[in-house]
Amino acid sequence: MSRFAYVNGRYVAQRDACVNIEDRGYQFGDGIYEVVHLYDGRFVDADLHLARLDRSLREIRLTPPMPTASLRLVLGEVARRNRVREGLLYMQVTRGVARRDHAFPRLPVPPALVVTCKRIPPYPASIEGWGMKVITHPDLRWERRDIKTVNLLPNVLARQAAREGGAGEAILYDPATRVVTEGAATSFWIVDAEGAIRVPSLGHEILPGCTRAALLAEMAAHGVDADLRPFTLDDLAAAREAFITSATSFVKPVLAVDGCAVGNGTPGPVTRRLFDIFARRVKGPPRNAPTPA
Amino acid sequence: MSRFAYVNGRYVAQRDACVNIEDRGYQFGDGIYEVVHLYDGRFVDADLHLARLDRSLREIRLTPPMPTASLRLVLGEVARRNRVREGLLYMQVTRGVARRDHAFPRLPVPPALVVTCKRIPPYPASIEGWGMKVITHPDLRWERRDIKTVNLLPNVLARQAAREGGAGEAILYDPATRVVTEGAATSFWIVDAEGAIRVPSLGHEILPGCTRAALLAEMAAHGVDADLRPFTLDDLAAAREAFITSATSFVKPVLAVDGCAVGNGTPGPVTRRLFDIFARRVKGPPRNAPTPA
Repeated sequence: MSRFAYVNGRYVAQRDACVNIEDRGYQFGDGIYEVVHLYDGRFVDADLHLARLDRSLREIRLTPPMPTASLRLVLGEVARRNRVREGLLYMQVTRGVARRDHAFPRLPVPPALVVTCKRIPPYPASIEGWGMKVITHPDLRWERRDIKTVNLLPNVLARQAAREGGAGEAILYDPATRVVTEGAATSFWIVDAEGAIRVPSLGHEILPGCTRAALLAEMAAHGVDADLRPFTLDDLAAAREAFITSATSFVKPVLAVDGCAVGNGTPGPVTRRLFDIFARRVKGPPRNAPTPA
Repeated sequence: MSRFAYVNGRYVAQRDACVNIEDRGYQFGDGIYEVVHLYDGRFVDADLHLARLDRSLREIRLTPPMPTASLRLVLGEVARRNRVREGLLYMQVTRGVARRDHAFPRLPVPPALVVTCKRIPPYPASIEGWGMKVITHPDLRWERRDIKTVNLLPNVLARQAAREGGAGEAILYDPATRVVTEGAATSFWIVDAEGAIRVPSLGHEILPGCTRAALLAEMAAHGVDADLRPFTLDDLAAAREAFITSATSFVKPVLAVDGCAVGNGTPGPVTRRLFDIFARRVKGPPRNAPTPA
């Protein structure tokens, strides 16, 4: 089936969907993106993603292409036209088309908006078989990793190194301090040697993960503590459990790091519990469950 | 007059020239670029730029879209079709079109090649009026600035800050060490308080500037020493002269930094000499000069 994309006001066949070669996204990476998970036809945590989109746009002073409510309608329409109920919605905003010059266009041009949708396998009902291996890789990215820009070449190279190492993700660390930041396209968590659930605190060093935030909220609601102190490669090596979070993967166990098993090499009890907690958030209450009195 | 661009094998009107929205240049900044100056219809230092293109492509493992000799023909044809004799040729190579996934496409896809050409004002016959003001700005870029990628958002933001500060370029420095690296899109040189001509040595911290290399070669040929020790903002504040080099600007005097005059605020004697030396390289020997015996 052919796929459809939204490009600057039009719904077009994706194979013909194009942008001008002087779109600043193409020549400068002057743009922002987001990915929203579609589960059973519903957006997962769209509010968080759309708020983060707005924040990223503000940080690089890029005008939103339309109000959030309109963007939400476009997202829904792209999903509908592609008949996708289990998938990922991708949206990208760039600073429009202008004669090449590093500084912003002197005469304002409309920002560009592209939205696509692709089908993905259904989210697994069980955590078994859902784990992955990772490698560690130096974090070579710029100093404002909290902005979700399309300047993704360091992430591309890290993810490619992971694939060539037989792994699904690259966990990035500061080569000077050995502090772990996050995955190339995921947030990274450990259950440390003392049993604390750790994920780095927000700052310019990491992206403010929407699934990270949603999981922290679920944990708080379930009385599960999180420890936001930074952790190092040594802490990781001693960890009992590890997992990633992202809009694509939700909670995904990490079973091995650089070829060494984490714990006994199977999903640990904390990761299992958080997987279940998050799955309930995504899926909502069981369809045939009795309504609470 | 409409402009023409080369896009993946075809010469097309630039306003209609487009790339697919899943071109990895657009979604990941997964690409490399170069700019070559056209002076009086001739390429300036094209060999250096094409060699650097090859090196950048190798560093990110991107296959060249065609042999260098063929690319040179395309550059010439784009200039010819646009009837440009004083201008800039821009070329960009990306990792082609593939379903979005950070790692390289599993099945190889052809790299994309885009070439454009634009007219610029003729290079000035005299250094008078050619100077510019600059600001200083923290260098927030990634750790591999020696690769000329289209991940240019930090450069965009720095250049925009320069414009808003009434300046033409942002000179970047490491906020931790105060060491100066380079301009947002130029190499940066000073004549220090002792009269030494200084430009940072090559490494991952700066782009290996082609005009920088060409000027160093000319200086060597003219018996002018260069000092490649790193220098700081304090060295800059005490400098007698400062100038930038780039394919666009060749040798351009810097007359003020953050609103403070460099020297007496006019091009100094060393900058004047290097401007003249480089102008002779660009222009070749005077047309009606007698041939040396």
